Amino acid sequence: MQTGTSDEDFMRLALVEARAAGAQGEVPIGAVVVHEGEVVAVGSNLRETWRDPTAHAELIALQAASRRLGTWRLTECDLYVTLEPCPMCAGSIMLARIRRLVYGADDRKGGAVTSKLSLLEPGLWNHTPNITSGVLADDCANILKDFFRAVRERRTKL
Amino acid sequence: MQTGTSDEDFMRLALVEARAAGAQGEVPIGAVVVHEGEVVAVGSNLRETWRDPTAHAELIALQAASRRLGTWRLTECDLYVTLEPCPMCAGSIMLARIRRLVYGADDRKGGAVTSKLSLLEPGLWNHTPNITSGVLADDCANILKDFFRAVRERRTKL
Repeated sequence: MQTGTSDEDFMRLALVEARAAGAQGEVPIGAVVVHEGEVVAVGSNLRETWRDPTAHAELIALQAASRRLGTWRLTECDLYVTLEPCPMCAGSIMLARIRRLVYGADDRKGGAVTSKLSLLEPGLWNHTPNITSGVLADDCANILKDFFRAVRERRTKL
Repeated sequence: MQTGTSDEDFMRLALVEARAAGAQGEVPIGAVVVHEGEVVAVGSNLRETWRDPTAHAELIALQAASRRLGTWRLTECDLYVTLEPCPMCAGSIMLARIRRLVYGADDRKGGAVTSKLSLLEPGLWNHTPNITSGVLADDCANILKDFFRAVRERRTKL
């Protein structure tokens, strides 16, 4: 990545990960971890493929970033994810000491940042990230809507 | 495990995992997953060893149980853990649809079940586990106290 890469640019890369998940039948959610202006790890939702309840895009990306950087303290890293994190992922973002969280669409049913819970409120923990939401929100929401519409249509045809 | 195994018996196995973590310099927290009366997975805190912010005992045990049973839906599984889960782990317990959560010591600073947050309250999510706390609570708390006391003593000597 070049200097001057914008939040939208990184979110487009998270969307690439989300689409890759959708192409293999997973709910399309994607994430990237950025360190010093470069993507150091990516993740996409792989719950069904891995048969693993914890295989969310954010968790996979944080684990990969830790392996790559050789530390669990991701204090200089920013996480971009297409959907507002769930409680597990919000917790992992706090534990990893992520500097900045940028997400696309709100998750009204399960979002743990602002929608259903506010797990990352400043002051609640020793460390909470700076947060930016709504980046490419329509694109991030639309791939989910399209995915679930296609699932419903397939079910109707059965 | 034989039929009639008690919560205390399974918590003793979680304590074995906790001690194993402590022996390698990790904060001593351990967990086991029980399915049909048998331990199908174990986990211990390995954050420093793996350099992974998500390497908590519960998450590792749930991931191992999913691999072993071939499904992310651990609806017939019970999780035993020596310390009250953090937000990440409480979230993963909900996502895995764990039937019953049994923990030992309360975590007043970071516990996400009753102490600091109540992330697993009935009705908050589609699925929440039945919860039992305080099983071998003193043993579970004491290995943590002993661990941190030893850390302080080593620091004083430096």
